[in-house]
Amino acid sequence: MEKSDVVIIGGVACGCKAAATLARRKPELEITVFQKEKELSYAACGMPYFASGDVESFQALTETSYNVVRDVGYFKNSKGFIAVTESEVIEINRDEKKVKVKNLKTGDSYDHGYDKLVIATGATPKKLPIDIPKSDRIMPFTRPDDAKNFRKLAQTGGVGNALVVGGGFIGCEVAEAAASLWGIETTLVEMEPQLLPYALDEDMAIPVGKEMEANDVKVHLSTAVTKFELVDEDKVRVTLSNDEELEVDYVFLCVGVTPASHLAEAAGLEIGENGGVKVNEYMQTSDPDIYAGGDVVESIHQITGNPIYLPLGSIANRHGRIIAEHIVAGEDRFPGVLGAFMVKVFDLNVGSVGLSQQAADEAQINANSVWASFVDKPDYYPESQSISLKMVFNPEDHSLLGIQGVGKGDIVRRIDVFSAFLQNKCKIDDLLNFEHGYAPPYAEALDPLYHLGTIAKSLENGFEQDSPGDDYSEGDFILLDVREPDEVEALPFKAKNIVHIPLNDLEEEADKLDKSREIVILCHRGMRSYQASHILKAAGFEKISYIGGGTTLAVKSLA
Amino acid sequence: MEKSDVVIIGGVACGCKAAATLARRKPELEITVFQKEKELSYAACGMPYFASGDVESFQALTETSYNVVRDVGYFKNSKGFIAVTESEVIEINRDEKKVKVKNLKTGDSYDHGYDKLVIATGATPKKLPIDIPKSDRIMPFTRPDDAKNFRKLAQTGGVGNALVVGGGFIGCEVAEAAASLWGIETTLVEMEPQLLPYALDEDMAIPVGKEMEANDVKVHLSTAVTKFELVDEDKVRVTLSNDEELEVDYVFLCVGVTPASHLAEAAGLEIGENGGVKVNEYMQTSDPDIYAGGDVVESIHQITGNPIYLPLGSIANRHGRIIAEHIVAGEDRFPGVLGAFMVKVFDLNVGSVGLSQQAADEAQINANSVWASFVDKPDYYPESQSISLKMVFNPEDHSLLGIQGVGKGDIVRRIDVFSAFLQNKCKIDDLLNFEHGYAPPYAEALDPLYHLGTIAKSLENGFEQDSPGDDYSEGDFILLDVREPDEVEALPFKAKNIVHIPLNDLEEEADKLDKSREIVILCHRGMRSYQASHILKAAGFEKISYIGGGTTLAVKSLA
Repeated sequence: MEKSDVVIIGGVACGCKAAATLARRKPELEITVFQKEKELSYAACGMPYFASGDVESFQALTETSYNVVRDVGYFKNSKGFIAVTESEVIEINRDEKKVKVKNLKTGDSYDHGYDKLVIATGATPKKLPIDIPKSDRIMPFTRPDDAKNFRKLAQTGGVGNALVVGGGFIGCEVAEAAASLWGIETTLVEMEPQLLPYALDEDMAIPVGKEMEANDVKVHLSTAVTKFELVDEDKVRVTLSNDEELEVDYVFLCVGVTPASHLAEAAGLEIGENGGVKVNEYMQTSDPDIYAGGDVVESIHQITGNPIYLPLGSIANRHGRIIAEHIVAGEDRFPGVLGAFMVKVFDLNVGSVGLSQQAADEAQINANSVWASFVDKPDYYPESQSISLKMVFNPEDHSLLGIQGVGKGDIVRRIDVFSAFLQNKCKIDDLLNFEHGYAPPYAEALDPLYHLGTIAKSLENGFEQDSPGDDYSEGDFILLDVREPDEVEALPFKAKNIVHIPLNDLEEEADKLDKSREIVILCHRGMRSYQASHILKAAGFEKISYIGGGTTLAVKSLA
Repeated sequence: MEKSDVVIIGGVACGCKAAATLARRKPELEITVFQKEKELSYAACGMPYFASGDVESFQALTETSYNVVRDVGYFKNSKGFIAVTESEVIEINRDEKKVKVKNLKTGDSYDHGYDKLVIATGATPKKLPIDIPKSDRIMPFTRPDDAKNFRKLAQTGGVGNALVVGGGFIGCEVAEAAASLWGIETTLVEMEPQLLPYALDEDMAIPVGKEMEANDVKVHLSTAVTKFELVDEDKVRVTLSNDEELEVDYVFLCVGVTPASHLAEAAGLEIGENGGVKVNEYMQTSDPDIYAGGDVVESIHQITGNPIYLPLGSIANRHGRIIAEHIVAGEDRFPGVLGAFMVKVFDLNVGSVGLSQQAADEAQINANSVWASFVDKPDYYPESQSISLKMVFNPEDHSLLGIQGVGKGDIVRRIDVFSAFLQNKCKIDDLLNFEHGYAPPYAEALDPLYHLGTIAKSLENGFEQDSPGDDYSEGDFILLDVREPDEVEALPFKAKNIVHIPLNDLEEEADKLDKSREIVILCHRGMRSYQASHILKAAGFEKISYIGGGTTLAVKSLA
């Protein structure tokens, strides 16, 4: 029986990272990676962009920056470890410290011994609770062949319309790929009442749905597929839970993934409640000679301390290094996850990190939210774009809990900075002390996080915000729109009792408003409404609040 | 004598911010701002973009996002305070708590009393130690009239060539404005041996000079102006310290600014060694009833604890809030500065935060540097651009000290994130635990800061880097270029003893190299060289090092 110092099952993100780091840290180690597929270390997250045609060839996803394919030869010569492809590990024998490997080309099986074992088997698509006819027209989107299959059909003009099942981030990326690049008439269905559930609160997901629809993707929320039927070789008839029927050329099953932990489970390793392999902070499983990392493991959330399943390539890579360090006797620990996430939906940048209001509520953490819209550079600077942010924090101890962002402007910068603040367990005041890199081509003089900090503090002085996700068209309040007349004309807001007084006239005209009525203030981004709240409060008004993020976020009530 | 609760001298960034925050926090306060110029609260940092024509009208720099000019009426009606323009405060009488104001339109003077006084008088241009003939062709670039004057001349075709004196960030911005937008033949002289001194180390400034020259700006380093002469009304003859003479249509004096602290000094307030007003963490001067903020004060560096002069609009605004909070009895403190800074130089984004190696050395802080180049999105993703970073850290306690970035890609994000890490006094390991917002349109799976962290740690395992600013064309070493043949052909590197072995062939061909010689490794971004160092080390080589950041940063030795 052959034997390696370290055997790694899976050669994509975590597996290859662990192997390469091990080889660098201790060149004398013999390391063998078994990979089920032909491709090694491919950029799985780039598949939607290959499917769309943004990325020319699949090979680009398997190449280094200098156009060398990351194949068996590359890993041997440049990275110092052995990769064996098209070889599936079908059994782990912990007592004898060996794995059974099946050569998928020949069908033969053989044993391979290990001192340390790393399970990096990734994830598999979740199964829908309905029958799915076997067809290359109804496919998940998790493996290279899925992307290649779709692109081949799309390229030959074989897909006129398509259905995307699932509005998570892969579903959103795939919908964009289909609709924008191939001009495919695309429909997306999502069981939850919002797109990007779990990552965003519902109010922050509304602009995402608007963007989909502005780009001709039909979106059905709170809707499930109840039936798939093959009409003929090229057509699928789909029945939805709202009794609608559609016939499409292609169905993407993007209902999420689940840890590919069967091998670990069969070996008797401890499995978490979400199906992921349980690991400690060194990424060791319940068997200290066996590590696991990447999409197969359960993570611990840094804020809640609760288990969470977070299959992301960025985290998988970091797992790989921690595993390698611990095997060579390092003391590095994985700190748990914060859930940082980004997705591009047509021209909209969307991201979040930490807890949403909903996630905080579910974890029974005292949480409050503030919203605001900004520009990512000063208004006067060319190409300035809007960004809207929602920040979640603990109103009691002022600790930061999370942020969500959506807009055509630079969202990822604020997600990343906020992630650094969360990692350091920061408070609202730390945002006010943040020193950002300022020059007009990059930022406004005060950073959006600074403003969110002051808004959060203003809640304590009685300046209330309303969620931009609410419906303002009806209700027992006066909606005070403090925008300028040309803004109101360009972007009317629908509300029954609407009054227009530009901010600059408000102090003078405040007596036109009925002090006994509840007043909800609105502007373009929220900052003028905040100022208007102060003016009205100073004028003796008591029942006032304003819509966080202004018309930029409150897109539901726009005409 | 009129009297206000709070009198503020200066109505640009700090002054107006303090006034607006005060009015919000305590509407019953009477607040008066005296402003020397006609314009209030103009975006001074936007002036280079007005000068260039990127920003259409100067009014855009004085308007809100909804096109309302920030004038006396706006501040009264929307912000709740009184601004008095074209009125210069010429004396502070601390005993009687009053200021003497000169109405610049009428020439009359009058007294105005205060309970609390805020000095926000900003900065004035530094003076050169030579005679400067009076001419609208030799002008600083700090006040609105300077920008308007230049633009008027440029617009009428009156400027064919120009000289920029000073290679700090204003000088760089102005050089770009002149050369790129108006097609003016532009020369820049800088006394120091590098552009952007103090902000960048010399090795990081070299690509900035290259970018200038690629855009037809002639750059003379280590060069001063020794003489200005007016040839006729429209021409200036300039003599340089290298004895060169040039005749130009316009001279920009961008040699920096100095605190406009004469008023404070005359009032007997304590002044720091760099000329800025000394303040405590509440922004109080040596007289507790007098505050100062913005470009007129001395700052304290958060890392060194030393005084530093940092005139930036972003910091001025934050000063304004701290002052207002303390006047209304808040307990917020200004934490000192980190020196975050950004500048766009043609297509290059340049920034830094914290200490450079040079600044750390000068402050006698134990410091070491690492360099690396990256892409801001995966290589396979469209519009991926390169970024190069230099990180400074303390090799003893592993604390982070600073970062500098230059490249066509997204630099500001890393400056901002690093600033958050510096604010939290983080260490190298914190970079390895950073969870960034990842998706291919935004980032690679592992963040550049993660890689810098691993490189910094690798120094301890004996993997040495060389500065990309060094000259590699000569020297007693073998330069091992591990790039692919097509890369070498496209971008040849000049070195006397150069050997080309692509990384993938290195393990096999290592014996071609002489183990007794010093070997310096080079690639495109530095990561392959790092890997090559491991391969050579495993093969028994001892005298190896590699050029940090690769050919992307080491532009000096490119053919």
